[in-house]
Amino acid sequence: MAVYTDITEDELERFLAQYDAGSLMSYKGIAEGVENSNFLLHTTKAPYILTLYEKRVDPADLPFFLGLMQHLADRGLSCPLPVARKDGEQLGELAGRPAALISFLEGMWLRKPAAHHCRQVGEALARMHLAGQGFGISRKNALSVSGWRPLWDKSETRADEVEPGLKGEIAAELDHLESHWPKNLPEGVIHADLFPDNVFFLDDKLSGLIDFYFACNDFLAYDLSVCLNAWCFEKDWSYNITKGMALIEGYQSVRPLSAAEAEALPLLCRGSALRFLLTRLYDWIMTPPGAMVTKKDPKEYLRKLRFHRNVKSVAEYGLDLKVSA
Amino acid sequence: MAVYTDITEDELERFLAQYDAGSLMSYKGIAEGVENSNFLLHTTKAPYILTLYEKRVDPADLPFFLGLMQHLADRGLSCPLPVARKDGEQLGELAGRPAALISFLEGMWLRKPAAHHCRQVGEALARMHLAGQGFGISRKNALSVSGWRPLWDKSETRADEVEPGLKGEIAAELDHLESHWPKNLPEGVIHADLFPDNVFFLDDKLSGLIDFYFACNDFLAYDLSVCLNAWCFEKDWSYNITKGMALIEGYQSVRPLSAAEAEALPLLCRGSALRFLLTRLYDWIMTPPGAMVTKKDPKEYLRKLRFHRNVKSVAEYGLDLKVSA
Repeated sequence: MAVYTDITEDELERFLAQYDAGSLMSYKGIAEGVENSNFLLHTTKAPYILTLYEKRVDPADLPFFLGLMQHLADRGLSCPLPVARKDGEQLGELAGRPAALISFLEGMWLRKPAAHHCRQVGEALARMHLAGQGFGISRKNALSVSGWRPLWDKSETRADEVEPGLKGEIAAELDHLESHWPKNLPEGVIHADLFPDNVFFLDDKLSGLIDFYFACNDFLAYDLSVCLNAWCFEKDWSYNITKGMALIEGYQSVRPLSAAEAEALPLLCRGSALRFLLTRLYDWIMTPPGAMVTKKDPKEYLRKLRFHRNVKSVAEYGLDLKVSA
Repeated sequence: MAVYTDITEDELERFLAQYDAGSLMSYKGIAEGVENSNFLLHTTKAPYILTLYEKRVDPADLPFFLGLMQHLADRGLSCPLPVARKDGEQLGELAGRPAALISFLEGMWLRKPAAHHCRQVGEALARMHLAGQGFGISRKNALSVSGWRPLWDKSETRADEVEPGLKGEIAAELDHLESHWPKNLPEGVIHADLFPDNVFFLDDKLSGLIDFYFACNDFLAYDLSVCLNAWCFEKDWSYNITKGMALIEGYQSVRPLSAAEAEALPLLCRGSALRFLLTRLYDWIMTPPGAMVTKKDPKEYLRKLRFHRNVKSVAEYGLDLKVSA
């Protein structure tokens, strides 16, 4: 839930005058996204999303994010499209913050996705990876392996408050991942946060991907591992191999994994589980008691991490080695 | 900012199947309203507001609120209209809560209203008072004079934390209002919470009133006093007589005040200022430290209350006695 900045109708109308977007009929702050302030606008022309970028987003990254959405949409991927101003710019300023007007994508994110949805997510992720080729800007993944230790340093002393022994367990995991992390897998632009709330469906068909504000350059198969973590575990944190198989098959129907990528999958899954464990742990520790925000349970990703650590073969994810080899 | 209950697409689609409202294209939790969970829906037919009534709303009051919106809309007042289900009912259930689908009213609330907006608010308030006549259900105002002392009893011991001396000041004010509160002014259905965020404008013209969830039966002129408090003070808490005059003239252009109502206005303004002072004081004291909600400053209404206490003549509000007498 996020509206950090309120805006007056006057400043919004001045902002909109820079676009050919019709005249304003209504705007409502919406309770989605955790980094930025988002408003749903109705104008005489269309619905739009207005995003004000708050301080957790580095303004220097905005040309990457907005340019990427444009690049992907130009290549046929269904994603929100930044609306160009009359002067050709995609980025404006509103209420003292960088702000963009973005096309509104109809569709709903699924609270209870099934295997056939996971298959479509895999397909869309692979299509995004292919469509991202040739994008002219790159952005380092600040939350990949080199970013985990600085994050861990801020939470380490209090980790055992979440679960006794967690401090030693994470330290060992981090040592292992740092020394074994793959070096030569295919790279490209990844979404890096393709959780269910960032994928829209209409009539049971995937209608679009949203929220590219963690996108960056990294191993493509790492993005698949994020999705396995985000889509293929049940509420009791057990891994659902039917969903995993569907997700991976969907992905490979568009972009087959190399043997090296398939082999690296358990390690990549451990890495992405640790990445979300560390950010959730940090938020858990830093959120003041009594704060009326829903704290995401770090233990969810601890359980997932332990599952991946025990995986003996990628067949346990539902990956058919005969097909992928 | 308020979305207390999330809903799944499945339960929402089952809910919508009870209506002739098109098929669902998107729904977003919106950050407006403080009592209920509100979603903005797009269907193939129209945009709608979906409201889930949370525990602060007594379900027994819902037929009053929904029936009132219907009654007012039937008489030409622009306000959100509950959509009837196929079985004729206005109220359904969703995620274990009473829920209603309501027409979406385009328009924006003004962060910086000017005097000509206040005039339109006065007109609309008076039109609402006339349109409310003949509504078949009544609802006691739980936040009028008889409700203030129970509320005060819960905050009294900590009032001086907000400002030294506040405890004695409110106690004296409450005694005075209880013994001098008017008894025989014209009554009817009042909005009771017509703040700027509950009045929409489009192209500088008032396009509708929303949020009838404090509506009740009480003195009509008390509703005007709420609006004087809500619309006619500046950010520095000074009273703007130009706005007050416009609001009152707008009101009287539709429904002239009786001499008794005009005479009672300073007392009614003290009462409505105390009402908002007491609820804000209660929320201020009860909100845990660190909670990420914007606490409304009780002192704003303390300053307004003091202004009203010093009013010697209703002319100070901008009310022209020659016209109203």
